[in-house]
Amino acid sequence: MQLPSALLENAVNELARLPGIGKKTALRLVLHLLRQDESQAQALAQAIVKAKTETQFCNQCFNISDGAECSICANKQRNQQLLCVVENIRDVIAIESTQQFNGLYHVLGGLISPLDGIGPDQLHIETLVQRVEKGEVQELIFAVSPTIQGDTTIYFIQKQLQHTTCKITTIARGIAFGGELEYADEFTLARSLTNRLPVNQYIQ
Amino acid sequence: MQLPSALLENAVNELARLPGIGKKTALRLVLHLLRQDESQAQALAQAIVKAKTETQFCNQCFNISDGAECSICANKQRNQQLLCVVENIRDVIAIESTQQFNGLYHVLGGLISPLDGIGPDQLHIETLVQRVEKGEVQELIFAVSPTIQGDTTIYFIQKQLQHTTCKITTIARGIAFGGELEYADEFTLARSLTNRLPVNQYIQ
Repeated sequence: MQLPSALLENAVNELARLPGIGKKTALRLVLHLLRQDESQAQALAQAIVKAKTETQFCNQCFNISDGAECSICANKQRNQQLLCVVENIRDVIAIESTQQFNGLYHVLGGLISPLDGIGPDQLHIETLVQRVEKGEVQELIFAVSPTIQGDTTIYFIQKQLQHTTCKITTIARGIAFGGELEYADEFTLARSLTNRLPVNQYIQ
Repeated sequence: MQLPSALLENAVNELARLPGIGKKTALRLVLHLLRQDESQAQALAQAIVKAKTETQFCNQCFNISDGAECSICANKQRNQQLLCVVENIRDVIAIESTQQFNGLYHVLGGLISPLDGIGPDQLHIETLVQRVEKGEVQELIFAVSPTIQGDTTIYFIQKQLQHTTCKITTIARGIAFGGELEYADEFTLARSLTNRLPVNQYIQ
């Protein structure tokens, strides 16, 4: 694709470096911005730079934050004894949007995956163990992907916490609401059969 | 969607104002940028602002340009007697990428569309007529979308140029009706340039 302007081309190339954005989409976005008020382009540029330079990671849970402590950890109304362990920040956002969880989080920053060269040292596992060892946390809920990597990570952390009294649980695996039974994979279906619940407990 | 950081939320909101980008996609893009080097966010922001503030429209053909005259108009190797009339800059880029056209362009900036309140005065039609009246242009090739608006625009401009000797043609309808020019494959677009027809033959 030959572009008539080097400045345009530069903007297109920069946008096309983002995941899922090809050159044609990038061009459409830049041409859209050119049609808008200058303030919109300025606001977008500033917001991107500010998000990159000024956001931090919470020094307790490693969630993204505007300060040294994230708004979730800073909220003393939340249950400090309940800790939800997730892979990344998107999982925190997903769980927060359910409005069903009132505890704190711990973002691992990934899952143990020897094939990708990710070992426990590259994740925030040591800080998690330290948090639990302080004794305040009563329950650790693992909300990680049901994959080999997820299971490995759970297993590894559980081993590290054997000497504590902290209860370790994982979110339920089963058939999704609205999911068709016949399209569910055998593993999920088998799990949901094994972990069946009394109807009165399920209906609550 | 509740985000844990106001800075993050701001960046997501700004990105989500772009066409075809929803909040979830915007979040994915911002989180990607946060994982990258700071220089990438800076480069992206700078490229966007520069593209918006420093690009101009060529004062002859209204193509996007880094200076007062675009690189196509400035290129004296190109056939100055051949003028391709297009709706917008994306069409110029699409035709240029076929490498089948060696003339100059004239970007109308839209098509006549009374329903959308776009009349001839809002388009670069007067300047086109003046360019042709200078006498150098021998042929005007319309490469506009095959829609009612496109046909209306061709008809209107043709009427305005009846007193000149300029030949008026249109690209062949190798492109499906209802298809957008910018999404056509290069081969079809190149063929339709080669097989252009005189307007009176086409309108029959």
